[in-house]
Amino acid sequence: MSTLKVPAHVPSPSEDAEQLHKAFEGWGTNESLIISILAHRTAPQRNLIRKTYAEAYGEDLLKALDKELSSDFERSVLLWTLDPAERDAYLANEATKRFTSSNWVLMEIACTRSSLELFKVRQAYHARYKRSIEEDVAYHTTGDFRKLLVPLVSSFRYEGEEVNMSLAKSEAKILHGKISDKAYSDDEIIRILSTRSKAQLNATLNHYNNAFGNAINKNLKADPKDEFLLLLRATIKCLTSPEKYFEKVLRLAINKLGTDEWALTRVVTTRAEVDMQRIKEEYHRRNSVPLDRAIAGDTSGDYEKMLLALIGHGDI
Amino acid sequence: MSTLKVPAHVPSPSEDAEQLHKAFEGWGTNESLIISILAHRTAPQRNLIRKTYAEAYGEDLLKALDKELSSDFERSVLLWTLDPAERDAYLANEATKRFTSSNWVLMEIACTRSSLELFKVRQAYHARYKRSIEEDVAYHTTGDFRKLLVPLVSSFRYEGEEVNMSLAKSEAKILHGKISDKAYSDDEIIRILSTRSKAQLNATLNHYNNAFGNAINKNLKADPKDEFLLLLRATIKCLTSPEKYFEKVLRLAINKLGTDEWALTRVVTTRAEVDMQRIKEEYHRRNSVPLDRAIAGDTSGDYEKMLLALIGHGDI
Repeated sequence: MSTLKVPAHVPSPSEDAEQLHKAFEGWGTNESLIISILAHRTAPQRNLIRKTYAEAYGEDLLKALDKELSSDFERSVLLWTLDPAERDAYLANEATKRFTSSNWVLMEIACTRSSLELFKVRQAYHARYKRSIEEDVAYHTTGDFRKLLVPLVSSFRYEGEEVNMSLAKSEAKILHGKISDKAYSDDEIIRILSTRSKAQLNATLNHYNNAFGNAINKNLKADPKDEFLLLLRATIKCLTSPEKYFEKVLRLAINKLGTDEWALTRVVTTRAEVDMQRIKEEYHRRNSVPLDRAIAGDTSGDYEKMLLALIGHGDI
Repeated sequence: MSTLKVPAHVPSPSEDAEQLHKAFEGWGTNESLIISILAHRTAPQRNLIRKTYAEAYGEDLLKALDKELSSDFERSVLLWTLDPAERDAYLANEATKRFTSSNWVLMEIACTRSSLELFKVRQAYHARYKRSIEEDVAYHTTGDFRKLLVPLVSSFRYEGEEVNMSLAKSEAKILHGKISDKAYSDDEIIRILSTRSKAQLNATLNHYNNAFGNAINKNLKADPKDEFLLLLRATIKCLTSPEKYFEKVLRLAINKLGTDEWALTRVVTTRAEVDMQRIKEEYHRRNSVPLDRAIAGDTSGDYEKMLLALIGHGDI
């Protein structure tokens, strides 16, 4: 469930575009006005504003925002304003680049979006980068990481609820066997995690738990320094309980000495319109502190206001 | 270029449906009438006829054809009548099944369709089989074959003409190094073949030829019994010169003792509306016999008539 608060009467795209243009004029920038508009519009509404703005002022709204804003606030506004598929393509591209590379971000995008959403990310990637996402991921990764990430970003999982119970049993057994042998990057583990539907995987992992007395992620806890093992566990979490995965990313980002603003901004901007309500509940449950209070304690200024607006804090 | 001959004045879908219904009535079936209609309609036209037929007679046209026809003629009419994406999903599914399994058919579908066409096959596969194509391919293959086929069927290649020449050079060198080491299923060979755009691959393979004095497929000719090597060569051919690949499939199907009707039917029904004109030219050039004469010499009856109609033989 979305945490976005959209006013009952939304101004027309040209009114919004005009207000935004005003916010950029003269000395300084009216950040509050920007937040009051963009943080309270849905993705289709923001797309229309962007289109209208470009027609009226001959400049991409994102370019204008880029000139006016700075730092973490800028990044949160830019990421938020992008269309979801474009935003994911942007984040994925960043995640394949040298100084911003992140296997986790690639895995997160591949595993927590719907099959059609992921396909739209692949289309947006073509349009923007003139390459395919799997091409860049394969080129910039090696070994086990490539072996896991390329099929994940290329997947188009079936999304029906049908479950084959005998398959769930046989594949739970395969997973258990490979994990017992510490063959974490075995072809069969990768095959099962990267091709099965989420419903089927859920049945397999439930059976794993029942048959072997442990959740699979308990059995994957061997070596805390093994980066591949950590990614594998996160993959399973993203596929089966994305809200728990995102809660943990937020928790680590906030509790970190010096806050990980990139992670915080990424999770808030990509999940606000999707499942932020559930992530907030999970966060409160796990940390005994509401997410908005935790964010307010760790951020400040316009950046704080932007994030809080997106997670549904306060009135419109 | 298509070899399909469509009349200048196409009857309405309901007239066509009515004629088809008449062809099924009474003793025997009017096969010529069926050919004269279906073999001379485009994919969108056939879809409309199928829809209209189902509405008028409460039965799927494919079911009716299935009851009335038999043997190779039946298979050619059914495959032809299917929507291209559905047809490829059907062929791919067949290719993952025990007694009809074929790594070549999977590779052919993955490498000779456009990126969007291949995506539509994946959607049609979901709808019809309640699983994903990569799921079935991964489950029914092992080892090197899985390693090559899963990324191929999952690919969504960039289709622009942009080429990075320095990348072409460096990847030609990688390919040459791995092939010299006989590491045919090396991660890097698979990565390059399964993720690069066709334009980029072409540049890479041209550079390979220039720099190392041999076309890559000449260097892949080592062991004629190595099934993986044969598939790898065919993959490269499909990606760079599909008309040559299809010419060879037709040549082998026709020259075989006892004709390979499945291959013949598959190539004719899947390529008639795409590039059959070029395949015919290539066939004539390579065999000094026109394709229609070769097909007429090797097939008979309604099956022969159907294939010849699809490759543009005779008048409408």
